[in-house]
Amino acid sequence: MSENRTEISELGEFGLIDRLSQNVSLHNPSTLKGIGDDAAVIDAGDHAKVVTTDLLLEGVHFDLSYAPLPHVGFKAVAVNVSDVAAMNAIPKQITVSIALSNRFSVEAVDALYQGINAACEHYGVDLIGGDTTASRGGLVISVTAIGEAQKDQLSYRSGAKVNDILCVTGDLGSALIGLQILEREKQVFLANPDMKPDLEKYGVVTGRQLKPDARMDIIHEFREMGVVPTSMMDVSDGLASEIFHICKASGVGATIYEDKLPIDKQTFDTAVELNLDPVTCVLNGGEDYELLFTIDQKDFAKLEKHPDIHFIGHITKAEEGKFLVTKSGTAVQLKAQGWKHF
Amino acid sequence: MSENRTEISELGEFGLIDRLSQNVSLHNPSTLKGIGDDAAVIDAGDHAKVVTTDLLLEGVHFDLSYAPLPHVGFKAVAVNVSDVAAMNAIPKQITVSIALSNRFSVEAVDALYQGINAACEHYGVDLIGGDTTASRGGLVISVTAIGEAQKDQLSYRSGAKVNDILCVTGDLGSALIGLQILEREKQVFLANPDMKPDLEKYGVVTGRQLKPDARMDIIHEFREMGVVPTSMMDVSDGLASEIFHICKASGVGATIYEDKLPIDKQTFDTAVELNLDPVTCVLNGGEDYELLFTIDQKDFAKLEKHPDIHFIGHITKAEEGKFLVTKSGTAVQLKAQGWKHF
Repeated sequence: MSENRTEISELGEFGLIDRLSQNVSLHNPSTLKGIGDDAAVIDAGDHAKVVTTDLLLEGVHFDLSYAPLPHVGFKAVAVNVSDVAAMNAIPKQITVSIALSNRFSVEAVDALYQGINAACEHYGVDLIGGDTTASRGGLVISVTAIGEAQKDQLSYRSGAKVNDILCVTGDLGSALIGLQILEREKQVFLANPDMKPDLEKYGVVTGRQLKPDARMDIIHEFREMGVVPTSMMDVSDGLASEIFHICKASGVGATIYEDKLPIDKQTFDTAVELNLDPVTCVLNGGEDYELLFTIDQKDFAKLEKHPDIHFIGHITKAEEGKFLVTKSGTAVQLKAQGWKHF
Repeated sequence: MSENRTEISELGEFGLIDRLSQNVSLHNPSTLKGIGDDAAVIDAGDHAKVVTTDLLLEGVHFDLSYAPLPHVGFKAVAVNVSDVAAMNAIPKQITVSIALSNRFSVEAVDALYQGINAACEHYGVDLIGGDTTASRGGLVISVTAIGEAQKDQLSYRSGAKVNDILCVTGDLGSALIGLQILEREKQVFLANPDMKPDLEKYGVVTGRQLKPDARMDIIHEFREMGVVPTSMMDVSDGLASEIFHICKASGVGATIYEDKLPIDKQTFDTAVELNLDPVTCVLNGGEDYELLFTIDQKDFAKLEKHPDIHFIGHITKAEEGKFLVTKSGTAVQLKAQGWKHF
């Protein structure tokens, strides 16, 4: 289409986003934050609205050979709610657009919306609109979520300060391990359709992949405890990649400790079974939808006893770099490998 | 995927939307209007936000063999701005998500965003976010637009009253005729690639198809003249179909007059050349992105002299039905054929 042809893979997803963002200029005073955080922020008088959107394609983001349609619908909502949570905001409305090929029956669409409606109920959001259209290929789902927060309650990626404590919720790496198991069982099934997939012992990891839950519970607890994280984002591309984002946006460095990284027992055991290094899974596994955030040290006492918040490290000066201190006490440079769709 | 299989084509797009809307319940007080208008409406304290979204797929909504990428980008924004206009609101922010196969180079993405950025400039909207991902099929574009209005300035589909005047901006049917010409020339080209398409004399109609302009000019004039349409929507599926929507939402009937319907001369001549009835094109052609609205009779004097607003009929009681009065004075029942993607 042009004499010079540059492949998108040469830039990668983040490179492409950087390139497309270059020419964007903001003109409206109601735009408080544009591209560059988990959600954009819009002025709404006495409060702020946050807006985030995700585009999910069959064959790229989900595989209907093992992902049940209600789970796909639930996840499409949950991943957007997770971005709203990452701003320390409360989700209120979503729009859902779908493109369908004639492979899909009305009953299949009902199954998809069963999951979408269950997620709306679970997170207390209203489905307010969308678009339905034909597709020549597979199922396409586009969700936009809108949330609310007081302006001084918002947590941006850019607010981390030296000596802040780096925290993460839940455990990490499970969704990646779940995906590996589902892909392995799919290959076994394709090779021998009479063989029943053996998924029972992998319930935790496959559940984390197929039906992740956005951590709105944590956001509501922040409200009750009067905690506003100095920075926050959700772990969708992998812990290391997200730490890089926060460090870049905040102009800081970070040190995290291997022995503080939270990993579920089933995830650990399954990683070993799959000959994968559990720590690599925790650092680079995507789609966990846990929250990574920093708090001022004065708030530590409020969260110290929380059973599902882990204090994995602290924020340093930018020039100190980004390091992982291993169990043996060696500091190794963090690498953001992330998860690439392109 | 189920024992009973109902084809989506049995329901049609509007039937599917009705079915999916049935199970939706709204819980948040900030949701002022959900599914069922050109845009949803959200409370923002002293004003309201409107939210609308469209999902556009290559091969369904646009054909890159004749639609230049900058035009596709411009149109993707314009069709959403048109929905904001249809609420009598001013667009302020958009998000744009794209899915790309490896057929697309970085230069192609630049060309697409050239159009998106031009549209943002033209309509004064800020590009605040989105998502980029890989696609196994063609190009997918999902746009969400957010606009603002004072709550008493909003025009819903449901506000038309008996004796209101039915108005339409610009002219109708041109985008449909443009599509017919583009498809004809594509077939000629496919049959004989040495033949150059002869598009010069069809500039108006092909332009209306490839690069429609949302009628924000009219919305700004409404503000200046102090006019708030009693009901409004944009003409995306065809005039007759939109009149049915307003009549259904408002619980009224309508009578329109053939000799009042606006049609461009090139559109008329080209329709005749293509053996299509020009009035049918005006009534059922889609994608015009003009505004259909009703005004109280007291506002007629303010708009009477407007060169681009046409008074095509009036609102009647529901039991009087929906009629077109032909040039010969015969009243025929309106049919909403619309434009179907499924």
